[in-house]
Amino acid sequence: MRDVAIIGVGQVAVGEHWTTSIRHLALGALQAAMGEAGVRRADMLYVGNMLSGELTGQEHLGALVADFAGMRGTEAFKIEAACGSGAGALRMGYIAVAGGMADIVVVVGVEKMTDMSGADVTAALAMAADGDYEASQGLSFVAVNALLMRRYMFEHGYDRQDFSFFAVNAHRNASHNPNGMFQFPVTAGQFARAKLVCDPISLLDSSPVCDGAAAVVLAPADVARSLSPAPVRIGASAVGTDAVAVHDRRDPLVLDGAVLSVRRAYQQFGGGPEDIDLFELHDAFSIMAALSLEAAGFAERGGGVRLALEEDIGLSGRIPIATMGGLKARGHPVGASGVYQVVDVVQQLRGLAGANQVPNARIGMAQSVGGSGATVITHILERMVE
Amino acid sequence: MRDVAIIGVGQVAVGEHWTTSIRHLALGALQAAMGEAGVRRADMLYVGNMLSGELTGQEHLGALVADFAGMRGTEAFKIEAACGSGAGALRMGYIAVAGGMADIVVVVGVEKMTDMSGADVTAALAMAADGDYEASQGLSFVAVNALLMRRYMFEHGYDRQDFSFFAVNAHRNASHNPNGMFQFPVTAGQFARAKLVCDPISLLDSSPVCDGAAAVVLAPADVARSLSPAPVRIGASAVGTDAVAVHDRRDPLVLDGAVLSVRRAYQQFGGGPEDIDLFELHDAFSIMAALSLEAAGFAERGGGVRLALEEDIGLSGRIPIATMGGLKARGHPVGASGVYQVVDVVQQLRGLAGANQVPNARIGMAQSVGGSGATVITHILERMVE
Repeated sequence: MRDVAIIGVGQVAVGEHWTTSIRHLALGALQAAMGEAGVRRADMLYVGNMLSGELTGQEHLGALVADFAGMRGTEAFKIEAACGSGAGALRMGYIAVAGGMADIVVVVGVEKMTDMSGADVTAALAMAADGDYEASQGLSFVAVNALLMRRYMFEHGYDRQDFSFFAVNAHRNASHNPNGMFQFPVTAGQFARAKLVCDPISLLDSSPVCDGAAAVVLAPADVARSLSPAPVRIGASAVGTDAVAVHDRRDPLVLDGAVLSVRRAYQQFGGGPEDIDLFELHDAFSIMAALSLEAAGFAERGGGVRLALEEDIGLSGRIPIATMGGLKARGHPVGASGVYQVVDVVQQLRGLAGANQVPNARIGMAQSVGGSGATVITHILERMVE
Repeated sequence: MRDVAIIGVGQVAVGEHWTTSIRHLALGALQAAMGEAGVRRADMLYVGNMLSGELTGQEHLGALVADFAGMRGTEAFKIEAACGSGAGALRMGYIAVAGGMADIVVVVGVEKMTDMSGADVTAALAMAADGDYEASQGLSFVAVNALLMRRYMFEHGYDRQDFSFFAVNAHRNASHNPNGMFQFPVTAGQFARAKLVCDPISLLDSSPVCDGAAAVVLAPADVARSLSPAPVRIGASAVGTDAVAVHDRRDPLVLDGAVLSVRRAYQQFGGGPEDIDLFELHDAFSIMAALSLEAAGFAERGGGVRLALEEDIGLSGRIPIATMGGLKARGHPVGASGVYQVVDVVQQLRGLAGANQVPNARIGMAQSVGGSGATVITHILERMVE
């Protein structure tokens, strides 16, 4: 197995791209990443996407994007794992390069959600949950998360407002991210008054429906230095799964898939939570941020919200999260988010995060969650050049 | 890179499974394959599927199937490449085992198409084509193939009836396949009288809408003999792509993606068409069978139909195809077919094809096509035990 490095990253600004098709979104991110890496071709292309069929009437994105990006003929596939699709595509690219099957692999996560009605998007997102046991009972995806948040508040004695700093932190960081969807801060007071989407989840607990694409270029680490001035090593790539339906889990308030995923990642990396300088986690809803912090070992069961209350998740806190706005405020084009997270970590490790720079960030972790915790993909990235 | 072998195969009978959910279909195939291989767990699971979201309201099949098959926690993803999804999943499994990332990988292709109306299925299948330039012009997927067949007849001077032996051969073989959907023969006369679906394509040129699942278990070849009495080596695994929209191709009647895919496969295997004892090709429509035979080097441009006219594709012919009924008559549950094809080749190489046995089959090729030729995945399999 070879070490693998990221030699180029690219993204398009997250937003509502009414006049841009899904292939154009993917192209924008790919061109940026491949341009930065200085490569014009690749051995393989992996496209992370969840809902192109349901929301844009287009499956078969692998070949479609390869051709449109000038790589006709190149091996290409679409990888799907609900909201974890983008990170899943990166995982495939990692396996191909680490195992020696390919030298240069490009990975793009893309999602276009805003062409359809809100009802259509809600129905489509419910497919991340269990169709037979959750969606068919009338549970939307936000409702699944609302049940988890309500149970968390009950078991651990929090109220809604205790979650406010997740939104305040994400928006503050997004306000300095030119690729973020919500480039404005919000206050704890605004959080208190935010409209409820699905009690107890408010608009400010929720990531937005949006369009976007992000891409990375992978190469063997031993040649990465000759290809890029600032390569970043993938120190760990690991996946864990769990039951899709929450009622089937061992404990609804423990993300066992995430526990498995990070345990495998820490083992592969040879470290633990104390080594991580920043953590791009899957804050699709505030409750998922809290549960992810706990599963990754930054807090005990029920302690995730305390990290927010004590502002330990800020840029200069104990474990900075959502450093460029996260899913909450940068935006969450579902199948793309896993790649945006990795792009954010790479920029932090390169010292290119501008006003949001985490001081002396050397090791960062990105974790993407499919569904309410059924697929969890964790990558640990490390600066290669001092 | 390690050699990879198939140590177990399984399938459920193709048909209309009104009372069986998509996860049950996948489970049936997995249990059969894992039972045969004598393994209860795997390092990874790849699910090949095209339309679970559109037709069953369920994405996130990786974790869903892993959990339902008793492998909660195991790394799992869904791979999509239109009708090539199943073979794409096998390709992912091959990469993981060959590169040393995993030892035991299970691959399942599954599709459940019959729960929806014909109109819904037609709209869903059109997503294999180009949404912006084909489907949005009113072209269904069968219409794309009808245009290709019409052009082929015009350029090469064939008439509709010249394609009849593709159906006659497939149905004759399916009549001895207990897992086949159409276990009855058809005659050239029936072909002549068959109802047109989309002129010049008739019902007997077309594979059926159906449900099914097939699975294989992969292991490193050097341990395969100790795990299975009849392992089969994957001698080549290769992918080529092309433009999704036919009008964008170099030549509408040459499957450049297939040409690339088989060239890479032959090179990897160290052989050519003369070494192949049987060829499970992608006969979703008769015209695709003809074009695939040409792209794989068994006939020159325009010569594919001649192989049918001369009955060279029969079980004792020069290049047997659709030996268990093919997509035409065994059935074509789209995301599953690529794995069914590989299961068929394995059974042939083991000498377990019963009445359909190709005499002394030692090397077989399976080729799956996404869309009308945009993603083409080729696997060459070789008997390991004499």
